[in-house]
This record gives sequence, structure tokens and C-alpha cells, in this order.
Amino acid sequence: MPETLHWQGDTQGHLELLDQTRLPAEEKILEIRELPTLIEAIRMLRVRGAPAIGVAAGYGTVLALREATDWSELQSRLQDLEDARPTAVNLSWAVNRMRQRIATLRQEATAWEDLAGPILEEALEIHEEDRELCRSLGRQGAALIQDGFRLLTHCNTGSLATGGIGTALAAIKTAHGQGKDIHVYADETRPLLQGARLTLYELSRSGIPATLLQDSAAPGLILGGEIDAVFTGADRIARNGDTANKVGTLPLALAAAQAGIPFYIVAPSTTFDFQIATGAEIPIEERDPGEILEELGPHRVPEGTVARNPAFDVTPGALITGIVTEQGVLHPPYTSSIKPPQVHGR
Amino acid sequence: MPETLHWQGDTQGHLELLDQTRLPAEEKILEIRELPTLIEAIRMLRVRGAPAIGVAAGYGTVLALREATDWSELQSRLQDLEDARPTAVNLSWAVNRMRQRIATLRQEATAWEDLAGPILEEALEIHEEDRELCRSLGRQGAALIQDGFRLLTHCNTGSLATGGIGTALAAIKTAHGQGKDIHVYADETRPLLQGARLTLYELSRSGIPATLLQDSAAPGLILGGEIDAVFTGADRIARNGDTANKVGTLPLALAAAQAGIPFYIVAPSTTFDFQIATGAEIPIEERDPGEILEELGPHRVPEGTVARNPAFDVTPGALITGIVTEQGVLHPPYTSSIKPPQVHGR
Repeated sequence: MPETLHWQGDTQGHLELLDQTRLPAEEKILEIRELPTLIEAIRMLRVRGAPAIGVAAGYGTVLALREATDWSELQSRLQDLEDARPTAVNLSWAVNRMRQRIATLRQEATAWEDLAGPILEEALEIHEEDRELCRSLGRQGAALIQDGFRLLTHCNTGSLATGGIGTALAAIKTAHGQGKDIHVYADETRPLLQGARLTLYELSRSGIPATLLQDSAAPGLILGGEIDAVFTGADRIARNGDTANKVGTLPLALAAAQAGIPFYIVAPSTTFDFQIATGAEIPIEERDPGEILEELGPHRVPEGTVARNPAFDVTPGALITGIVTEQGVLHPPYTSSIKPPQVHGR
Repeated sequence: MPETLHWQGDTQGHLELLDQTRLPAEEKILEIRELPTLIEAIRMLRVRGAPAIGVAAGYGTVLALREATDWSELQSRLQDLEDARPTAVNLSWAVNRMRQRIATLRQEATAWEDLAGPILEEALEIHEEDRELCRSLGRQGAALIQDGFRLLTHCNTGSLATGGIGTALAAIKTAHGQGKDIHVYADETRPLLQGARLTLYELSRSGIPATLLQDSAAPGLILGGEIDAVFTGADRIARNGDTANKVGTLPLALAAAQAGIPFYIVAPSTTFDFQIATGAEIPIEERDPGEILEELGPHRVPEGTVARNPAFDVTPGALITGIVTEQGVLHPPYTSSIKPPQVHGR
């Protein structure tokens, strides 16, 4: 399976990006040399998944620097990058980390022409840290998966969504790698089908037995006793544990709570937004309703049909059995058990 | 809008059926003259919705009688009709009512060649009773809808699903007809898109403002305070109020309970199956997974993908605020407040 993100060459190099909108039919690698192309790729979900977007933003800063002629132009380009998608906190986390690195370099009176090297180094380090994070999340999540478990997951939280092996899907892959006999149910994840197109592709590549479900079928299976645990990722987590994730996560948590099976979020601690007290404050991206209407195809709805297309929903922290982070598995109430992630500084 | 079901002519006539699989692109009327054609139409969801299937089964008995040469062949054909779909109780209810009418006629020593008239009369009466039931359900349901309500519905429960103006959608249409300012959110209802194709078609024909949602988006809107009440139909209700309805109903009930908004089932009392104590005993139809894979289209999932396609889920009675029947609005616990429907006899 091709790598989702790969920086090719030195500071004059480019980002190789696997275009996820083409999967599973085609493994097309985009060569991204300009920031606007990357921003388009983030907006159009050619690269998606909160951690992968964070890694992309690191490399985007290298592109932004190459295109800027002064500090203020650089800041303005970084703002464009941060604004590419509103919900995933990793995007602004990564851009802020790059900003901080730039501020330090500026403070150290680094010449403009000497910035590129340390900036690329920082971007590569974000990527490497994400790889290590994924391995750690995989190990910790796998410990919650017993032999024989029938697992449910939503959207895509694997290699395609991160700079490493994934978050929720890393737990599943790691458990499988440990020889546990598991079966995975994957939601289609309308309208962009990240579950059908991407998660099944990753599971199939990993040899993990899997079954596709349409999005609204899972709660019935959960209450029918056919699922042992639910694992999903997260795009932003409030201080109280309220979690924004791909739309369709909330009904799984509600069903799991009703049935008394565990519902786990697997996400790096950078997914916590300590500025935000509860889920009510998390901005929810409303995407183009055309995504829904186009996926339906022509003549499937009456002329002039209006649609709403929220890309995320918010699961109350109280419904989440545990949040698996690199700091360990956190349990409700979440406010006391979470430490802000260490912001990388030099 | 064409009638969903219409018997044309006398006992030698035929059933005119609006082919719902073609909507909204085409209003195609099928002329059904043979029982196997009707059974295929029921299986392929050309006619669907528990009450409409019940009405169709009445007319199907007229066809069965025309094709049979003796009592035992007639019974065998009626069994084929009853087996066309397993979950909707109205199908077996209607077939049993026709069986009872046949038994009475046989007891009265009615000549074989004189059966057709009273049998068609009974089928027409089932249809007429359903029309009246729908009007009654509409009035009772509308009383629960306040001016300004934002309503959520699932699948299709309107004229297309019944012999009259509908069940849950009848409540919505009646409220609109009373001049209440309402807005309806309609789920797509994957994989066969009864919400997108049929409910939006009916709402648009009725001039009721509506918005399409993909199936997993509604719980987020409900917890976000954007929905005032949920109205759905039912395919089979156990004695304790556990309700089988189109897959995707359960997550709406879970979200409504979490948010504290009302969740109503609107269904004739014939939808109760008094043979069945709880939802665990309701047989859930698993349909061909090809329905999901074909709706996705080619190259959207890896080769060899396996899917599950349960057509229904079961909502626990405790999550249901009220069941609107022609006997009035029933509330939990349901066992004491439900009277078995009067079986029509002469």
C-alpha cells in the first residue's frame, strides 16, 4: 500500500500525496509543489483524517515559506492553510507549532534564506512523531480488544488518515497482528464513503475479515448483540471529553451505551482542544450539499431538493467508555485526567 | 400524484400499481393480472410500506382465487403471498383476514364459482378501511405537531406506503393542511432511498418545505437542538411496544431520548403482533447485500467485499414517547393500553 504522505527531496522538493478520492479504484500519487494545490487537496479530502491533515500542514509550511517573500506574507499564507478545514484541531495545532518554530527562528535572527532547512526538519519531525504516536495508540487500543471480538468502526482512521498506521484502525490492525481472531464491521460513511472506499481497502490489504454496513444499520446490530466494541477516531475533543468526529459517530455511541458495550475513541492528545470547554463550542463544518446530491446520482430526488451536509457530529463525553491517547486510556470524567500535550519547543 | 394501488374493473379486472422503484424519475403504472407478478412486486419493493402491502395482499387474494382450481391450491397460493416478505405483519394480517373470509364462505357452502365477488368485496373493504385509518392517524398525529415544529422522518410512510394518505407522513400532511408552519427533515434511507426518492417526492407534491439528510446525520441535528419531534411508521410492534421499522429508525429514537424530544410511531393497530411478547422475537428480514453494493456503484469497494443488509431494526418500546393508532395515542408501558384490533367477520 502506498504511503499517504511522503516528502520527496530537500527543501526544494515536493510532497507526494496519495489521492484518497480515487481509492479504491486507482492508487494515484499527486506531486504537490505549491501551497494552493495542497489547500485544495485538504478541502477536497484528497488528504483527510485529522492526524494526516496535521502532517500535511507541516509540509504545507515548507511550501508557504518557499512562496513567501517576507514574514508577513508567510503568516498570511499560514492563515490560508489553517482555514482549509474548520473542525480538525490537528490542522491548527500543526500550523501553530510551525508558527512557533518560525517565531523562535526569527527571534534567533535567522536569515530569511536559512529558514527552509529547520522548517522542513520540523515538518519531518511532526510526521515522525505521528508515526510513533500511531504505534503507541495501536498498542494501547489493542489491549482493549479481546480474542473473538466483533468490532465496529466508522469513517477511516488508518494509514490513510494519519502519518503512521492509524488511530482506531491502528488498534484493530495491532490486535490482528497479535494473532487475535477479530471481525470488523465498517460503516459506508456517507456521503464520501471513507468507510466503504478506504477502510475496507486497508482491511483487505491487511487481511482482516470485514463486513460492510450501510450507515444506519449498526445500531440495530449493536442492540442485537452482534458487536462487542466500537472504535472510532476523533477530529476535536473538548475539555469535558465531548468529541467531534465524522458524522455518524454519535448514533454508534448512543447504541453502545444503550446496549452496554464499550465505545472507544482513539486519538493523539493533540486532538484535545483545551480552549474549548464542551462540544457545544466546537465549530461543525457544513460541507456542500452537492456532495450528497451528486453521490445519489441524477433523477433520484425531486428537482430543487435541498440538503444539509454536516461533516461531523458531537458525541457527549459521558457516552465514551475511554479515550485512548499516547498518555494512556482516559476515562470519564475527562477534565481531571487529561494533560495538555507538550508543545514542542527548542 | 397517481394512486399507489387501484383495482380496475370487476372480478376479472386487474390491479394498477405505481412502480415505486422508478420514482421520482418516472410515474410508471404496472397492470398486475397474475399473483406471481404481484409477489415479485412485493419482494422487489415496487409496492412497499406495511399498510400498502396489506392492501395489495387483499387484491392478491382475488388473483390467487382466479388462478386456483380448488380450495387446497388456493391455500397454497395464499401461503406464497404471505411469505413474500417476512417482517411486515400487515401482510400476514391481510392474508389471514382473507383466509377467514374464504373459510366463512366455504362454511356457508358457497359455490366455487361464486367466491370471486365476495372476495373482491373484502379486498376493496380492506382498502377503504385503510383509507379511513390513514385519515384518523393523520388527525391524531397532527394534534401532536405544534406550529413551527421542525420534524424528522425516516423511510416513506405516506400515500405510497399505504392505501390512503399515509401514517407518519399523514400526520405531517394533516398538520400542514391545518396551516401549521412546519419543516420536515427526511433521511435518505439507504440502500433503497425511500426517503430521498419517495418522501421528498410526496412532500414536494404537497408543498411542504423539506430538507434531505444522509442517514447518519440526524442524531447530530437532534442533539444540536435542530429537531422538535420525530415521526416514523412501523412494520411490526410487539406486545411491549418494541417496534420493528425500516433500518435506521433505532438511532433516531436513541438520539431523541438522549435529547429529550418526543419520538412517535404512527401505525394502525393491525401493526401490533399480539403473538409476540418483545422485539427479540420479531424476524428481521436480511435482504440481498447486492442492494448495498449496487447502490454504491462499480469500483467503490475492494473486490470481494461482503456486506450485511438488514432491512429493519427494533426500537425498544421504552424509547417510544407514544404510538399513534386509530384507537388513540398509546404510551408506555404498552401492554395494558393496547386492544387487539377487531378482526372483521360476518
